[in-house]
Amino acid sequence: MSTTLLVNATLLPCDDAMSVVEGGWVEVRDDVVQGLGAGPPPDRPGAAVMDVGGDIVMPGMVNPHCHMAMTLFRGLGEDVDDRLFRYVLPLERRLVTPEMVRVGTRLAVLELIEGGVTTVADMYYFETEVGRVVDEAGLRGVVGQTLADFDPPDHRTMDEGFALVEALAAEFAGHPRVTASIAPHAPYSTDVPVLARVAAWAEEHPGVPVQIHLAEMDSEMAWCAERHGLRPVQLVRKAGLLRRGLICAHCLHVDAHDIACMAEAGATVAHNARSNAKAGRGIAPVEAMRRAGIPVGIATDGPMSGNTLDLLAQFGPVTMLQKLAGHSRKPMPCVEVVRMATREGARVLGLEARIGSLEPGKQADLVRIDLSSARVQPVYDVYATLVYASLASDVRDVMVAGRWLMRDRTVLTLERKKVLRDAGQIAAAFRAEMTRIDAG
Amino acid sequence: MSTTLLVNATLLPCDDAMSVVEGGWVEVRDDVVQGLGAGPPPDRPGAAVMDVGGDIVMPGMVNPHCHMAMTLFRGLGEDVDDRLFRYVLPLERRLVTPEMVRVGTRLAVLELIEGGVTTVADMYYFETEVGRVVDEAGLRGVVGQTLADFDPPDHRTMDEGFALVEALAAEFAGHPRVTASIAPHAPYSTDVPVLARVAAWAEEHPGVPVQIHLAEMDSEMAWCAERHGLRPVQLVRKAGLLRRGLICAHCLHVDAHDIACMAEAGATVAHNARSNAKAGRGIAPVEAMRRAGIPVGIATDGPMSGNTLDLLAQFGPVTMLQKLAGHSRKPMPCVEVVRMATREGARVLGLEARIGSLEPGKQADLVRIDLSSARVQPVYDVYATLVYASLASDVRDVMVAGRWLMRDRTVLTLERKKVLRDAGQIAAAFRAEMTRIDAG
Repeated sequence: MSTTLLVNATLLPCDDAMSVVEGGWVEVRDDVVQGLGAGPPPDRPGAAVMDVGGDIVMPGMVNPHCHMAMTLFRGLGEDVDDRLFRYVLPLERRLVTPEMVRVGTRLAVLELIEGGVTTVADMYYFETEVGRVVDEAGLRGVVGQTLADFDPPDHRTMDEGFALVEALAAEFAGHPRVTASIAPHAPYSTDVPVLARVAAWAEEHPGVPVQIHLAEMDSEMAWCAERHGLRPVQLVRKAGLLRRGLICAHCLHVDAHDIACMAEAGATVAHNARSNAKAGRGIAPVEAMRRAGIPVGIATDGPMSGNTLDLLAQFGPVTMLQKLAGHSRKPMPCVEVVRMATREGARVLGLEARIGSLEPGKQADLVRIDLSSARVQPVYDVYATLVYASLASDVRDVMVAGRWLMRDRTVLTLERKKVLRDAGQIAAAFRAEMTRIDAG
Repeated sequence: MSTTLLVNATLLPCDDAMSVVEGGWVEVRDDVVQGLGAGPPPDRPGAAVMDVGGDIVMPGMVNPHCHMAMTLFRGLGEDVDDRLFRYVLPLERRLVTPEMVRVGTRLAVLELIEGGVTTVADMYYFETEVGRVVDEAGLRGVVGQTLADFDPPDHRTMDEGFALVEALAAEFAGHPRVTASIAPHAPYSTDVPVLARVAAWAEEHPGVPVQIHLAEMDSEMAWCAERHGLRPVQLVRKAGLLRRGLICAHCLHVDAHDIACMAEAGATVAHNARSNAKAGRGIAPVEAMRRAGIPVGIATDGPMSGNTLDLLAQFGPVTMLQKLAGHSRKPMPCVEVVRMATREGARVLGLEARIGSLEPGKQADLVRIDLSSARVQPVYDVYATLVYASLASDVRDVMVAGRWLMRDRTVLTLERKKVLRDAGQIAAAFRAEMTRIDAG
């Protein structure tokens, strides 16, 4: 049995009250939080004691929507409309292989750990490879096998796609940190019969989260209207898939009726503020969704859309865009942003019983964030500091399930240089393919 | 005579074509750029040679609107409307002293250097103190003594205010790096007679830049309309102040006629994307202003409004907000963002003959930005990397006028620990005053 005591912390347990505990301590025993409090820590002979010198200690952050392997697409084809059909899908068809997914996901996992994210929900191809990388690196993840009808890289038919889902679910059944998930790509790329088949599959596999891109694009709205005379949320509902365990990414185009239906069904939302803004798509009605009781988490989207997996870099945009939309400083106070990135993100993924806050018995997923930079001083309001001033590079130590994944900015569970070298080699092939596409 | 050669750079000279030079070199002789190019560097016996290992070398960034001493207000009173009148002005009246300005400005200068900003335009009180701190730290600055009629901390009458301006101008006349400036606060806090007096003073002092907050707030629009039946830009024009050398901060509420008048007059704009968004105020029409030929720079605003002086953290919002407003990915391509932060920022301040790009004969103000983070890899498009992925913490070395201000993240011209300690002491007084205000 191993015990670690973190002492002298600006402790943010991310409990329901979003308390701030000055001079706080946390006791970790094996993989769980044993206790926490203010003042003198308990006497634990033999414990590893870590004095964090007033730094923030808080739950590791949750990124509920990501396409990790797309780190290898980061920065390709910027500032161009219709990137999805012009670049993303052709590049994926030609270049996405199990090897590419392994290499790109390793790069992503390195970046996530360096930025203080301890749980990530992914949806991509060859997803068993993704789960294995998450496992090797000691991270926590919800790994979703994508299903789509646009000739994606890993399945030609839906039967093949479901076989990949079955293999994924079998491999990670009962895994303590990796949760298999099924991920129909979007309404326009699956249509109602596939969505209904996913709903039936999910019914037979309780506890398996379902991920989907939903109500994201103007072209999607038009497709759903023309094909079915429905809005995307209603189309998913018609297919029987609007249910507890459905994680909806984006949700820009949801009206009051859509929101009421989502809340009633128990669906959750992954909000991608930067990615949506960068695409010029709009501002999701986050405040309205949360008022209706829908859990909303903060996500990065894939690195081709959002460029980084830096969750702290989402914090400013998340609140600023709601303030812009509300024409006031009041919407989305700082503390709510941090709540969304931790305990609410855990609810989005259905993991709130195990992670999202530091409470006795929960998993010891935590991060230490340095407060010594000139950029963050003075610290009057630690939530304002986190939302408006902290950078990913301020994250100093990261623990998942009681195991240190990063100490003093050194990631311990990945070979950093090899990860970057392998990524560089695959990037050369991407460069060549882009040149070919641009040449017509 | 001292010579430094930087070699093996991803060199961004920020010339008019915004070239990218792989394997580039820059030669610095004393305080100026002697030469630059690609391929083998010139043979310079005795030169200090620095191999940057493929990192970016580019001109130091320009922050054309800031209230540096307000680092000490960072994070106070967040998420509250009407902060200016409820918190900022009362706090300033009671707590802004020459000592506070020195301490707060030192903290700001430390942060600016650590974030790769080499030229800053400031407008605040006791501005001679600001100029001295900028000078001591080796930074380049345009330091503007604020004039306002709301009983500001350093002058009770406009005569006293102009005396401060005269003293400032006298102290820094002919200084190689510090340029004195006069800064009428805003239309609603100076009114036409003071603006006209500033215009007359500026006429007598050619080359002294004028800074003003302009067309920023709904309440300002209402004040100008009720008092004068004019929009803010037209009010400044009526006072004779819309002229070359006028630096207008914000400019959210400018219509086509305002823009045409500003362009014709040769006025320039400091754009504060994050600060404006965070206040819920709106999105400045940056594309329209630039199309009209108005130079627009990227600014942080003061740290009470924008929280940090991190210019790289503005890059994403600058492009994303224009894309949102334009409902497309196309507005404000990455390369334009970097242009605004360098050569165009220099034009905003009237310093384009001396800084803003790396060209032979220009001042050697440059930064090195590390490209080794997992968060930025792979680098397909270095401008996309800078705009969407780089963080202030990636800035590794900073030179102003040929002198290293930071090497390998260590600032050489300020006593870091003392700066933070002094700031912490003054922060205690701010905390107490906030408690008093909130208690009513």
